[in-house]
Amino acid sequence: MKENMSKNTKEIVFYTNPESRARIVRRMLEEVGQPYTVKVLNYNGEMKTPEYLKVNPLGKVPAIQHGDLVVTETAAICAYLADQFPEKNLAPPLDSPERGTYYRWLFFAAGPVEMANSAKACGWNLEDNLQMVGSGSHDDVLKALELAVSKGPYICGEQFTAADVYVGSHISWGMQFKTLEERDSFKRYVERIEKRPAFQRATKLDDELSKG
Amino acid sequence: MKENMSKNTKEIVFYTNPESRARIVRRMLEEVGQPYTVKVLNYNGEMKTPEYLKVNPLGKVPAIQHGDLVVTETAAICAYLADQFPEKNLAPPLDSPERGTYYRWLFFAAGPVEMANSAKACGWNLEDNLQMVGSGSHDDVLKALELAVSKGPYICGEQFTAADVYVGSHISWGMQFKTLEERDSFKRYVERIEKRPAFQRATKLDDELSKG
Ligand SMILES: N[C@@H](CCC(=O)N[C@@H](CS)C(=O)NCC(=O)O)C(=O)O
Ligand SMILES: N[C@@H](CCC(=O)N[C@@H](CS)C(=O)NCC(=O)O)C(=O)O
Repeated sequence: MKENMSKNTKEIVFYTNPESRARIVRRMLEEVGQPYTVKVLNYNGEMKTPEYLKVNPLGKVPAIQHGDLVVTETAAICAYLADQFPEKNLAPPLDSPERGTYYRWLFFAAGPVEMANSAKACGWNLEDNLQMVGSGSHDDVLKALELAVSKGPYICGEQFTAADVYVGSHISWGMQFKTLEERDSFKRYVERIEKRPAFQRATKLDDELSKG
Repeated sequence: MKENMSKNTKEIVFYTNPESRARIVRRMLEEVGQPYTVKVLNYNGEMKTPEYLKVNPLGKVPAIQHGDLVVTETAAICAYLADQFPEKNLAPPLDSPERGTYYRWLFFAAGPVEMANSAKACGWNLEDNLQMVGSGSHDDVLKALELAVSKGPYICGEQFTAADVYVGSHISWGMQFKTLEERDSFKRYVERIEKRPAFQRATKLDDELSKG
């Protein structure tokens, strides 16, 4: 991969656990194609050491360290890496309308989709609080996601971006864990995303880590 | 304001209600300083018309339309406007480390802070589901927010950005509505944010709208 290496050569450290949202960041890192150092943290204390709490006060994965900078929050890491390695074209140009679509669905997945999924998984009742709760109902979330994936092969049209890495993972897991209803448009979209070589490399690496 | 006008002259339409998260977008629009057209939607049906559901399938405010493009999600609108009007310096440079900090706290507020606030307001129990739920506990969210506001006068250090518009509003409302504990660091930070002329203009406009 040397010939494609960016001038941006600060070390990337990736804090992860293969059974977590950190799989999304692995997919993004494989799209970016820069070398990175993997630090696996288990769920039995390694995320709550004083040292790691300095990286992420939530004691959660994923996180990355890039030079001196720490970034947490899966969607933030994806957006940051896309901007840092512009030669990979993983974000729409700053001055394009697509940049608005990109942020719209990144934030929609990080806010409303996360909220609706957690509500389903934890048995919280959204329906009593629809006006206030940022996600609206499950059905509203599905409708919005259908709009997100209906414009083109990818969220921003012809260009595959970090929004597909992030939103695609949420749609795929949502269907798998039954927090999101299966829909044909979702299945076709997820198939497109999961065919990508970077996705496949990431999955293989994390499946191997998982097996131990 | 003509002399400061950007070359980016597509019309901005702002869908709002003064009693909503749309106040955050108003603050951002006032920071940007471009003219915009205001469409006020009440909570008694105007957000659920077929016409508006095409703008936002959630039937919620805020939303903006910029030329042909629709952007929903408060944080997405803030990030989009910052990128569209780079001459206002409301986002750190793409290739700077601060860009990572910027995304980190924008997404942290849109995800974990929204989740923790909704949980408190709706009586959902985060504590039984800490490992899975993206926010961690209320206490974790407070700790993380203290880290966000402790680095400088602003989230990205010396530069005031869209992250301050968004995160600052969440911190301020969180304390006001008692979903976030009051802390001295939060109060000092919110004071700095609320002193800004754009913030004061926005508040005045929305307070007037509110009174009717
Ligand atoms: N809002 C965070 C959520 C991260 C998160 O909840 N990670 C889980 C695994 S998917 C975790 O590390 N849990 C361990 C714990 O909370 O103790 C993000 O989007 O990155
Ligand atoms: N996730 C959205 C949430 C927007 C939202 O929930 N807006 C509320 C007002 S603050 C709304 O329009 N409620 C009307 C309704 O749901 O009927 C965002 O961050 O912009």
